[in-house]
Amino acid sequence: MSDDVYELYYWPGIQGRGEFVRLTLEEGGASYVDVARQPESEGGGVKALMRLMREGQGLEPFAPPFIRVGDRVIAQTANVLAFLAPRLSLIGGDAASRLAANQIQLTIADFILEAHDVHHPIGSHLYYDDQKHEAKRRAPHFLRERIPKYLGHFERLVARNDAGKGVHLLGAGLTYVDLSMFQVLSGLDYAFPKAMAGIALQFPLLGALRDHVAGRPRTAAYLGSSRRIPFNEKGLFRHYPELDSPD
Amino acid sequence: MSDDVYELYYWPGIQGRGEFVRLTLEEGGASYVDVARQPESEGGGVKALMRLMREGQGLEPFAPPFIRVGDRVIAQTANVLAFLAPRLSLIGGDAASRLAANQIQLTIADFILEAHDVHHPIGSHLYYDDQKHEAKRRAPHFLRERIPKYLGHFERLVARNDAGKGVHLLGAGLTYVDLSMFQVLSGLDYAFPKAMAGIALQFPLLGALRDHVAGRPRTAAYLGSSRRIPFNEKGLFRHYPELDSPD
Repeated sequence: MSDDVYELYYWPGIQGRGEFVRLTLEEGGASYVDVARQPESEGGGVKALMRLMREGQGLEPFAPPFIRVGDRVIAQTANVLAFLAPRLSLIGGDAASRLAANQIQLTIADFILEAHDVHHPIGSHLYYDDQKHEAKRRAPHFLRERIPKYLGHFERLVARNDAGKGVHLLGAGLTYVDLSMFQVLSGLDYAFPKAMAGIALQFPLLGALRDHVAGRPRTAAYLGSSRRIPFNEKGLFRHYPELDSPD
Repeated sequence: MSDDVYELYYWPGIQGRGEFVRLTLEEGGASYVDVARQPESEGGGVKALMRLMREGQGLEPFAPPFIRVGDRVIAQTANVLAFLAPRLSLIGGDAASRLAANQIQLTIADFILEAHDVHHPIGSHLYYDDQKHEAKRRAPHFLRERIPKYLGHFERLVARNDAGKGVHLLGAGLTYVDLSMFQVLSGLDYAFPKAMAGIALQFPLLGALRDHVAGRPRTAAYLGSSRRIPFNEKGLFRHYPELDSPD
């Protein structure tokens, strides 16, 4: 399995949902190609992504990210991770661990969609400026209620996971859901630096988890490389100062 | 496995996300208790649901629906279905089928969240009336663009699934994702009867799939029973006539 070469298909200019896959591939030491970030002259670019979506090879993906390995095409972020993680030793091979990890990842998926919809409450088809008024209505509740509710849930998972030494959501070692949690915390900090400065203090275990992930050699190397696309205002987590306020 | 008794925990007054689990349990012929719909005097009601969420038995669920079987608690709709379906012969036992089904179920999950957010674009903490203005902004795009995009995707899955005789999303027989697709189509019809009258004509294979599922003896019996909660304006799919218009 370690000889597999994975092709990742995702929008080339943003971290977005693709970043959860990138982090797992990087920390797992996988050989992979981030296809849409390669030059078109070498078969890359968004064109390659669109081509594979339309071709209908395997089960048609509804949207990126998806991966190709051999002749298999696998889509939906949580599904891609559930496929990759056992191959990359980022989850145990037993059914109970996989089920638990998937449960956590799906809760993270719900959370990041809410984070996205703070700046896009009316729809992804409109620019932020065209739904800024509604976004300002949505943001305070997200900051005051939803972030603490979600982070409180994840903090309790770390606290109750006796084997995890206070830095893991599940089991005794690093799993892909720790990587995803790191990404969520990083994204929230980027999008809402003022609000998160206060909120983060309430969740020390998640802070420790985040530091632990950031310090893993492979992940640290990735985060310092040009392969890590900076956060920006086209992705899932966007910094609009006017939304970074609890009222 | 067929001797297992499953406990389903979900809000008692709505179909909501719990309905995807109910349909799988019913069509799978499982023995189950819909706990929150039982009398409090018999250990049921919402109190029983809240108690189990707080108790922290197993991995804490973030939200209903979740199930308990033996001493295991399993949450997140798609995850619950991925657990139940192989036990109830509603998906094949091979990894490739399960992965494909999970991919489809997660796309359905994205779709129903968008359907929900049509009537709750600002947040679930506010009544519909307090976000009606924003909902009216969101609905036309959902009807004109999003429903056809999603249904087109699912229609192609049925069309390209040669083994499925034009009535199955995946493989040769009924799987849990067919049940979920039935539920989505039923919900859309309930919420947007005017718009769907036209839209449905474009997706004849999905119509055939829906009829096929509705005609399965166990599902037909369930749909005709008092165990099937009627659609209403507290669930995922809500009928607000003012939103049932493409402009």
